[in-house]
Amino acid sequence: MRIVVDAMGSDACPAPDVAGAVLAARELGSAILLVGDEKAIKAELVKHHTVGLKIDVVHAAETIAMTDKPSAVIKGKPQSSMHVGMNLVKDGQADGFISAGNTGAALAIAMLATLKRIPNVERPALSSIVRIGGRSVILLDVGANADCKPEWLTQFAVMGSIYARTALGLAKPRIGLLSNGEEEGKGTALIHKTAELLQETSLTFVGNIEPREIFEDHADVIVSDGFVGNILIKSLEGATSLLLNLIRREIRSGPLSTLGGLLARPAFNRVRKEIDPFEIGGAPLLGVNGVVIIGHGRSNDVAIKNCVRQAEKAAAGGLIDAIREGITQPKV
Amino acid sequence: MRIVVDAMGSDACPAPDVAGAVLAARELGSAILLVGDEKAIKAELVKHHTVGLKIDVVHAAETIAMTDKPSAVIKGKPQSSMHVGMNLVKDGQADGFISAGNTGAALAIAMLATLKRIPNVERPALSSIVRIGGRSVILLDVGANADCKPEWLTQFAVMGSIYARTALGLAKPRIGLLSNGEEEGKGTALIHKTAELLQETSLTFVGNIEPREIFEDHADVIVSDGFVGNILIKSLEGATSLLLNLIRREIRSGPLSTLGGLLARPAFNRVRKEIDPFEIGGAPLLGVNGVVIIGHGRSNDVAIKNCVRQAEKAAAGGLIDAIREGITQPKV
Repeated sequence: MRIVVDAMGSDACPAPDVAGAVLAARELGSAILLVGDEKAIKAELVKHHTVGLKIDVVHAAETIAMTDKPSAVIKGKPQSSMHVGMNLVKDGQADGFISAGNTGAALAIAMLATLKRIPNVERPALSSIVRIGGRSVILLDVGANADCKPEWLTQFAVMGSIYARTALGLAKPRIGLLSNGEEEGKGTALIHKTAELLQETSLTFVGNIEPREIFEDHADVIVSDGFVGNILIKSLEGATSLLLNLIRREIRSGPLSTLGGLLARPAFNRVRKEIDPFEIGGAPLLGVNGVVIIGHGRSNDVAIKNCVRQAEKAAAGGLIDAIREGITQPKV
Repeated sequence: MRIVVDAMGSDACPAPDVAGAVLAARELGSAILLVGDEKAIKAELVKHHTVGLKIDVVHAAETIAMTDKPSAVIKGKPQSSMHVGMNLVKDGQADGFISAGNTGAALAIAMLATLKRIPNVERPALSSIVRIGGRSVILLDVGANADCKPEWLTQFAVMGSIYARTALGLAKPRIGLLSNGEEEGKGTALIHKTAELLQETSLTFVGNIEPREIFEDHADVIVSDGFVGNILIKSLEGATSLLLNLIRREIRSGPLSTLGGLLARPAFNRVRKEIDPFEIGGAPLLGVNGVVIIGHGRSNDVAIKNCVRQAEKAAAGGLIDAIREGITQPKV
């Protein structure tokens, strides 16, 4: 098992990316291929104790910026660390690829230039994993496809279910459809039609799920189009960060509440850790012909390490073969 | 100026609804028509000091439950407090209607049975007002219309802008379009087309707004279809309530953090008040031929009072006439 780490991915690359690769090699025993500017990577590696760790460096001459347009990088930067790294997976030299870089670029390079789609997958989906109360929920699509067809959403459900089985170890993942309530007239035409299609599959479809129900253990995989899914995760992030900022401001506004805040700090830190996306890892890109995990641009070394672990789990669970098989299965 | 309060609206009706009407009459000097079961209303009124307050009771024989289907109440409960109350507005006996009841039913009764649409309004929209840092942002549509056309969203922008002008006193409201980023390929076909239409209007259109930007003073009115808007507000509510619950649980988990929580309680209460929807009032229903404000089902007396104030402001600002005029204005 060997995982490619894009050394040029994160906003502060290559320092956190390289440090995360070292952490994964040390703590998880992972075999890592660090891909990117060789000189820059080696300058980072010397800052760490790497003796005995399974880390190799593969040079890539170009780096993709967060501001690069997905359509421009495919042909515009063919020597990018994403191109080189994903091709290592494609050629069987590695079992998975992780990057904290430009999501749109990674999606485009995976789909069109390197790994390509798994046969019969209509559209790959970007997923997001939310962890709450020790339980993981997979949301997809959260940004790859804005306008979707019911058939695509049904495939997202299949792929999400397979990810939950192979990478998260859930025997029978429950599939929910993101909607705004069960009441008459709720949901769009897309939702109504997708619900019909999901009922015809052999998936464990539990019906519509409202945003607050994501946290209430109703479903393990929640399906939406990429526009609504992206609005959802950005709303959750936005509300959480706003609320934490308000609390911080008000607590600091007086001496007694400041003292109170200090005494309650360990409690706050536990909450912060519970909702910290870095503890979970990254967003699996499902439907491309290889394990690809995309981390946050602001990833630190722990986040990168957790992405590596996530890629290893998906690869060990046989994610790609399972999707290849699951997506072509005739409807039950 | 006289406002109809649906006494049979809230989950705990008629107690909070009547208490809120009394509060509005006392604190704001409002003239109130309390509509609903006369006996039940009077049994509540005697619990309050109402001497000298401008409160009248209008009997309505039927009550709409939260579980009633919108399509069933229009003809099924023609004597409901919503029917009777909205007809008082329609007949010019009152200047606005507020209810903490079933939103779908209120929308249906307003649109189809009583007030009807303002001429040329394609679809009325339910709006939601978010208050943050002393600033109000109007989101619409948040649930009335799941599948929308670009022309409808453009009208939502016009109506939201007029509400911001007439009821919130903003001279030149900035209009944003809810989307998932500015990058290439972001947004749906609906978003792209609506952005084109908005650029052709005389509105102050500031472009796409991401969920976290709602709180960052970029726009005063944020437009979306009713499905996405509903997902948005439910996500914000869900994340906020989840986070507050997590913080409460962790703070109570040890003696030191419990003490800290006690010391910081005033700070928490200020945060809670800042994000409390009850402090704002309710959701204006825009596009129907009369001022209608829908409060939360869990409204208390303060929330009801704030809905009355909101209805008074909208009526005093000439909301309905301004929409009638604004919606028919030729494109600039």
